[in-house]
Amino acid sequence: MKIVCYECGKEQKDGNFVYRCSCGGLLEVIHDFTGLDAEKLKRLFAQRLSERMSVYASGVWSYKELIHPELAESDIVTKYEGNTGLYRSEQIRSALGIRELWLKAQSENPSGSFKDNGMTVAISHGRALGFERFTCTSTGNTSSSLAMYAALAEKEAIALVPRKQISLNKVLQTLAYGAKVIGFDGTYDDGIRFYERYGRELGVYICNSINPFRIEGQKSIVYEMAQSLNWELPDWIVIPGGALSNVTALGKGLQDMLELGFIRRMPKVAVVQAEGASPFHMMMSQGKRNLEPVERPSTIASAMNIGNPPSWSKARDFLSRTGGETCSVTDEEIMEAKALVDRSGIGCEPASAATVAGVWKLIAEKKIGAEESVACILTGNLLKDTDVLREYLLKDGRAQMLAADLTVESLERLIRGS
Amino acid sequence: MKIVCYECGKEQKDGNFVYRCSCGGLLEVIHDFTGLDAEKLKRLFAQRLSERMSVYASGVWSYKELIHPELAESDIVTKYEGNTGLYRSEQIRSALGIRELWLKAQSENPSGSFKDNGMTVAISHGRALGFERFTCTSTGNTSSSLAMYAALAEKEAIALVPRKQISLNKVLQTLAYGAKVIGFDGTYDDGIRFYERYGRELGVYICNSINPFRIEGQKSIVYEMAQSLNWELPDWIVIPGGALSNVTALGKGLQDMLELGFIRRMPKVAVVQAEGASPFHMMMSQGKRNLEPVERPSTIASAMNIGNPPSWSKARDFLSRTGGETCSVTDEEIMEAKALVDRSGIGCEPASAATVAGVWKLIAEKKIGAEESVACILTGNLLKDTDVLREYLLKDGRAQMLAADLTVESLERLIRGS
Ligand SMILES: [Zn+2]
Ligand SMILES: [Zn+2]
Repeated sequence: MKIVCYECGKEQKDGNFVYRCSCGGLLEVIHDFTGLDAEKLKRLFAQRLSERMSVYASGVWSYKELIHPELAESDIVTKYEGNTGLYRSEQIRSALGIRELWLKAQSENPSGSFKDNGMTVAISHGRALGFERFTCTSTGNTSSSLAMYAALAEKEAIALVPRKQISLNKVLQTLAYGAKVIGFDGTYDDGIRFYERYGRELGVYICNSINPFRIEGQKSIVYEMAQSLNWELPDWIVIPGGALSNVTALGKGLQDMLELGFIRRMPKVAVVQAEGASPFHMMMSQGKRNLEPVERPSTIASAMNIGNPPSWSKARDFLSRTGGETCSVTDEEIMEAKALVDRSGIGCEPASAATVAGVWKLIAEKKIGAEESVACILTGNLLKDTDVLREYLLKDGRAQMLAADLTVESLERLIRGS
Repeated sequence: MKIVCYECGKEQKDGNFVYRCSCGGLLEVIHDFTGLDAEKLKRLFAQRLSERMSVYASGVWSYKELIHPELAESDIVTKYEGNTGLYRSEQIRSALGIRELWLKAQSENPSGSFKDNGMTVAISHGRALGFERFTCTSTGNTSSSLAMYAALAEKEAIALVPRKQISLNKVLQTLAYGAKVIGFDGTYDDGIRFYERYGRELGVYICNSINPFRIEGQKSIVYEMAQSLNWELPDWIVIPGGALSNVTALGKGLQDMLELGFIRRMPKVAVVQAEGASPFHMMMSQGKRNLEPVERPSTIASAMNIGNPPSWSKARDFLSRTGGETCSVTDEEIMEAKALVDRSGIGCEPASAATVAGVWKLIAEKKIGAEESVACILTGNLLKDTDVLREYLLKDGRAQMLAADLTVESLERLIRGS
């Protein structure tokens, strides 16, 4: 296992863990998979499905051989993350008019978002290196996840959060787990830039998605999906695009599986951004090589409110190589899709619903065919952002708390009336 | 499988499903376990642990033979509920000064509370009977769970909620899943009484804990715990006491396992109530036979804000027979215990933390010995009640969002200072 620069290929030494190469490039973990036998591994992974009390009960560490083979089991900090539901919903499928639809609910992770898949690996790695203080810049989900794992490991957590446009629930969750929460005036992107430059000096272990071990852990989402579907993936995997760690991680995970012979065919990946924060979609749709950051990103989907996503070049290369797509959707489309997902009984936060809105759009644009099969990754839990529900449902009058006396007449009127 | 009155023993006919016997007694499902072989079942249950995509991937339906053997698989409405983490926490264990401590996180269920274990069975049963409208009275968790499963089943959900002292997040969650939410002036107990009397007339299927199928599903919590611990349970299982469905269900589940020979020894059960809503503890500690309802129950732990718990006689009989205990804890003790659970990285809502506060008290009262082993059941997710976090953490100044400029000096001061 090596850590190399994604841009110039220079190898980094783990003992001196850094987050960017001296050339400015992002780092990447490169595994040596020679000698691994796909059929043997499939059997091992199948056996581990029945684990409940060891580290292999985790939906991440059950694939340890492909994620961090060298880490000692005793360094692993886990909350049995992963193991999330892969659902069909006839209601959503028929509303979208697609042949087959899956929803992978990473929202069911212990801290309520897909961040747990990567965070368990980053915190475990940092602990193995001897760090005591763990930090991140976050729109909320990363900080909750960081705070949860740091608490489990009895380490200190510090979350740097932009003061505007983050969800209060996520801040409260982060505080509850005992993290220090530090607000600053600026965007997520300012925070990232700051830590890239000064994180080392501050002596903290950085758990943002620039951390290549986050990416290794996040690969497990697509391993788990493939395993559940007997190693036959749908035609498309659709994900929301914020920091773009998801497309990077899924792309890497898919590549692993193809290389090892777990799967025979590379599915296509579609990245959906919110119109107010869509620098990656703009770059891709205009055929540009370089990303132009959005200065003041703005979307109701706080988890996607990122104007300068760090992982854009990895994401670009993967989509270009594999024929992926991007699109952007409006806040209205996101909330409409969210209502559909919530009413299906699955539920999610706004950023997750962007995937369903994106499928709608990509079908309309004839980029996804109605005869294809699609899996949407739901990244965050419905309970992560109840402010947005209050605004959308209550204030805008889409739903209301009715009132009745406890009499048969009064209730009958409300029950029968719809 | 029969449905009989818990008080007079009269058998009810399923085709004419009622919630109380004509004598006023609660109903109970009685299974015929003759012919079941414990060793064979253990092997079957062990095999099912590796299921992911069938109904047996559920941590409830994986024990179908002991819960509802007669239900057709096609009637099952499931979201793979159960399968929750069973954690050790050295921080909490040492704070309590007990030999061994487990935390069973039912908070990790798909709707965020232990209600899902029972609700999947109630909704499936009601659907099999042909009902189209499902309802409950709720302090919030039951209604969220009801709304989620009704949405999955494409049925209508109606939640009757007292207008005061319920958590806004839970109402928003219930509305998001598409339920009709009807507020009334009165307590949870008033709602229960109303439905017991008029539910039939309204043609709705009632999913409160008086529904004996809820109890059957909830038994799975203790099955799962036992299976994870290789069929050796701790000395004590500690649960919060609201409607008392939990003690009823756990008691019944433990009884099943003892009868079938899954376990050899009956653990003791302790029920913890909040001081402002502790009619059951008052009855038990004063050695009375009958429960005196608390007129105006009041506690910060909204899920336990119940003055007239329906299942008190089943709970009383089980505790009396098996040497269980009860206690009550103050809202301050609950919130202190919650801070401990949250900071351990596990997290829960206030009612769940009452269990940890209760262990503290029961050790002090020498009812639980420091050399014993204890499992606390965490009933609800941290994100279920962020209002209480906002009050407790932010308004009361126990935690705060710090502020900094993005400079090394400014951050260093905040990071090092503690
Ligand atoms: Zn480089
Ligand atoms: Zn009777």
